[in-house]
Amino acid sequence: MSLWTVFGSEFIGTCLMIAVAVMVCGSRALPRTGAFGGDWINAALGWGLAVYVGVYVGWRSGAHLNPIITLARVLRHQFDPSVTMNGVALADGGVPVGAAAVVVYIAAQFAGAFAGACLGWAAIRKHFDEPAPADAKLTIFCTKPPIKSPLWNMITEIIATFIQVCWVFVNGGTPTAVGPLGIALVITVLVMGLGGVSGAAMNPARDFSPRLAYFLLPIRGKGDSDWGYAWVPFAGPLIGGALGVLVPTALGLIA
Amino acid sequence: MSLWTVFGSEFIGTCLMIAVAVMVCGSRALPRTGAFGGDWINAALGWGLAVYVGVYVGWRSGAHLNPIITLARVLRHQFDPSVTMNGVALADGGVPVGAAAVVVYIAAQFAGAFAGACLGWAAIRKHFDEPAPADAKLTIFCTKPPIKSPLWNMITEIIATFIQVCWVFVNGGTPTAVGPLGIALVITVLVMGLGGVSGAAMNPARDFSPRLAYFLLPIRGKGDSDWGYAWVPFAGPLIGGALGVLVPTALGLIA
Amino acid sequence: MSLWTVFGSEFIGTCLMIAVAVMVCGSRALPRTGAFGGDWINAALGWGLAVYVGVYVGWRSGAHLNPIITLARVLRHQFDPSVTMNGVALADGGVPVGAAAVVVYIAAQFAGAFAGACLGWAAIRKHFDEPAPADAKLTIFCTKPPIKSPLWNMITEIIATFIQVCWVFVNGGTPTAVGPLGIALVITVLVMGLGGVSGAAMNPARDFSPRLAYFLLPIRGKGDSDWGYAWVPFAGPLIGGALGVLVPTALGLIA
Amino acid sequence: MSLWTVFGSEFIGTCLMIAVAVMVCGSRALPRTGAFGGDWINAALGWGLAVYVGVYVGWRSGAHLNPIITLARVLRHQFDPSVTMNGVALADGGVPVGAAAVVVYIAAQFAGAFAGACLGWAAIRKHFDEPAPADAKLTIFCTKPPIKSPLWNMITEIIATFIQVCWVFVNGGTPTAVGPLGIALVITVLVMGLGGVSGAAMNPARDFSPRLAYFLLPIRGKGDSDWGYAWVPFAGPLIGGALGVLVPTALGLIA
Repeated sequence: MSLWTVFGSEFIGTCLMIAVAVMVCGSRALPRTGAFGGDWINAALGWGLAVYVGVYVGWRSGAHLNPIITLARVLRHQFDPSVTMNGVALADGGVPVGAAAVVVYIAAQFAGAFAGACLGWAAIRKHFDEPAPADAKLTIFCTKPPIKSPLWNMITEIIATFIQVCWVFVNGGTPTAVGPLGIALVITVLVMGLGGVSGAAMNPARDFSPRLAYFLLPIRGKGDSDWGYAWVPFAGPLIGGALGVLVPTALGLIA
Repeated sequence: MSLWTVFGSEFIGTCLMIAVAVMVCGSRALPRTGAFGGDWINAALGWGLAVYVGVYVGWRSGAHLNPIITLARVLRHQFDPSVTMNGVALADGGVPVGAAAVVVYIAAQFAGAFAGACLGWAAIRKHFDEPAPADAKLTIFCTKPPIKSPLWNMITEIIATFIQVCWVFVNGGTPTAVGPLGIALVITVLVMGLGGVSGAAMNPARDFSPRLAYFLLPIRGKGDSDWGYAWVPFAGPLIGGALGVLVPTALGLIA
Repeated sequence: MSLWTVFGSEFIGTCLMIAVAVMVCGSRALPRTGAFGGDWINAALGWGLAVYVGVYVGWRSGAHLNPIITLARVLRHQFDPSVTMNGVALADGGVPVGAAAVVVYIAAQFAGAFAGACLGWAAIRKHFDEPAPADAKLTIFCTKPPIKSPLWNMITEIIATFIQVCWVFVNGGTPTAVGPLGIALVITVLVMGLGGVSGAAMNPARDFSPRLAYFLLPIRGKGDSDWGYAWVPFAGPLIGGALGVLVPTALGLIA
Repeated sequence: MSLWTVFGSEFIGTCLMIAVAVMVCGSRALPRTGAFGGDWINAALGWGLAVYVGVYVGWRSGAHLNPIITLARVLRHQFDPSVTMNGVALADGGVPVGAAAVVVYIAAQFAGAFAGACLGWAAIRKHFDEPAPADAKLTIFCTKPPIKSPLWNMITEIIATFIQVCWVFVNGGTPTAVGPLGIALVITVLVMGLGGVSGAAMNPARDFSPRLAYFLLPIRGKGDSDWGYAWVPFAGPLIGGALGVLVPTALGLIA
């Protein structure tokens, strides 16, 4: 598989994941949709199923959809150069493990997340013209904790990403039984628990690129893009992702 | 398999899909049912599981249940005449790929959707006598966007159908693991995100035939059938469905 | 397998199904529980998962859990004496197809549903002492349509049971992929759609035995047991179940 | 597999199960999170998916995550010394059936649950500083029935644990089809039904260790830890777990 195909696959997988999530969150937050005011489970299950859609569509490249997963696989590769996961490892499908592949994966994820945010915005375009608190529109795109505290918000992101990455790697050794639905359910419960606390980004591309889209798109009554917070969904997931590889490797839980 | 069996299978699959969806939406919208006022997730998961019921019941003919899926398979066939999907391709089960089969599929889908709307209406018949806003009764049957804007409503339908069809075709190359539950979950999240925006028809038969049923059935206090909008759930899904075949084919994502 | 084992298996499967459903409905209806006032999806998914629990626990006897399923299999057997379904046919596991087996199945279902209603009541016992409208307590056990109309209530039960039985038989010829979760999801969406209309009994044992338990148990402030309605969840499911075998058989949809 | 690996696996599996559950319940209960006031299904499905996460992460040791499951397997072993379940029996993976293994399992479960409660607390740390009724904060960690009645609360726990353990053992003889999702759905429906009645602990480690964490952690405005109730989630699950082995064994339902 060429790096162009990797790019296309990661790009469209991440794009549809973010587009679906923006629609679901937007539809819940904007006052004239039929879905307005839906229960929290709409947000949580909506995010889980957005990942579900993206994982299937991006299967050719292993559906990382998240720079943290790409980097975690590189890190895991240090411990066991022969490792593959669910038959879809970093080195799988003819993609060499190396700096070029990592750059292509990550570039596709950031670009796809930006395109997805624009696609999701276009799908509910007219509803963005309705009045709503500026934060309501911002948090359709990116994360903003209701209680801002950089240290504790980062700890929340570390824990969320740790659980996600740990599950992805340990699960690789088991009969997963339900395929991509597995990770969708894990994302669902992590958003249930931490989506209302830090936004549960767990993925720098998922936060940065939609924030940039919010910054650039013509959105009525939009406020600040809160760039001052944007480093947290980088730093937290990087630390949490590293722990999510190291802890189960140390405990011997990865088959 | 004869074209009569194809007709019967598509007819009953589409019929039960629409019947279940009409019941769920009606039960949520009409004021004296126990389900009245249920959260948005009832509508979204209800639609997903309506598709789930219909796909199993119409399995013999491949359970298209949607003219867009039938036409998308014809289009896909142009690129790769040997293509089958999930073991249930257009040409599968002895049905020849040709104009007669396409006409039978689509006729069965429109007829089944009409019968299903009547069946769903009969199942909650007495509740239609209760007073409710006319739009509440109309939107049990067919789609009506809360903010009417033909262009943007059509874009919403294009995006929803694109994601659905893209998922159906790309997913054909993966281990789907959960069978018909897969498409049910995709429909669930698309209705979560866009059901409250354009109604997320994604299927001309799903919109036209129940609209006709609403127009013909004796429903107390019913209003206009809003035929002026009826072209949007044709045009949007046709464009979105074509893109849903062309984009993943171009990117090389269909196995 | 002896008829004693059949009895034990059907008894405990039906018992746990009804016990779980009574708990879920009771917990939603009684004012001092933490679950009080939960959204309709709790009732719908709760019933679906109650069936899920019961089907696994009663697997040894094929987990009919419903006289309509037992009778539908006898009816289906008329058309094709060699038929088995999901590897668990009426004649499966050493149980002869015959009047004795049918009597044992049905007796176990009614007895199990009675025991389950008592078990569910015991599990939330203290909450039944709290004041609540009498109908709220009655409908924890058995069905009572919000709009009483014997004819239309029966039509609702016919349609609900038709869809359920049709799905069970047609599904027997497909890769079900998710095992007992399949029927759980079908029950979920039927309760979503019709549980708030007729109660969606679809099963005489599910209605009669818990109604008897309500009649006999010491429940504070309980009202009438509404025996005048009790024939509907017999007649409707009998007709709907017969149609659920005949229609897909006639259309050639059962593999 | 060494007992150290068993300890690590059970520890981290129980830890992540409890951490996720504490986050979900805390996020629903504390007033400034985005998830505040979510419907009961968030609590029920959240607990189910917390078990889902824990079962995958603790798969190496069979993912008991509950002293009752460990003891139930010892009890089951009395009846059939060769028994294994789902390929993951007490004696599986090289762990000898014996007092040392039982002690290691149970110690890991209590220690993991304590660590998980602290991890979940850390993840939503700042929200614990917000004012909330003391019971709201207590019930994020451990169980407290809204109507206190030691006898009936214990009966509730007996019934909940009986159903859970009975399902786990009977299910061992069937094609489970959806893997760890099965037990997640059973937990979901038991919490739907009894989580609002007794808290549905069904697991002494799940109640005792988080209660201890609540007692020790610096939580603003925290009240009594209600140690007087702490024996119920021991006694009830012990009795219910024993019945959950004995009843299906006596009925011949375990394959």
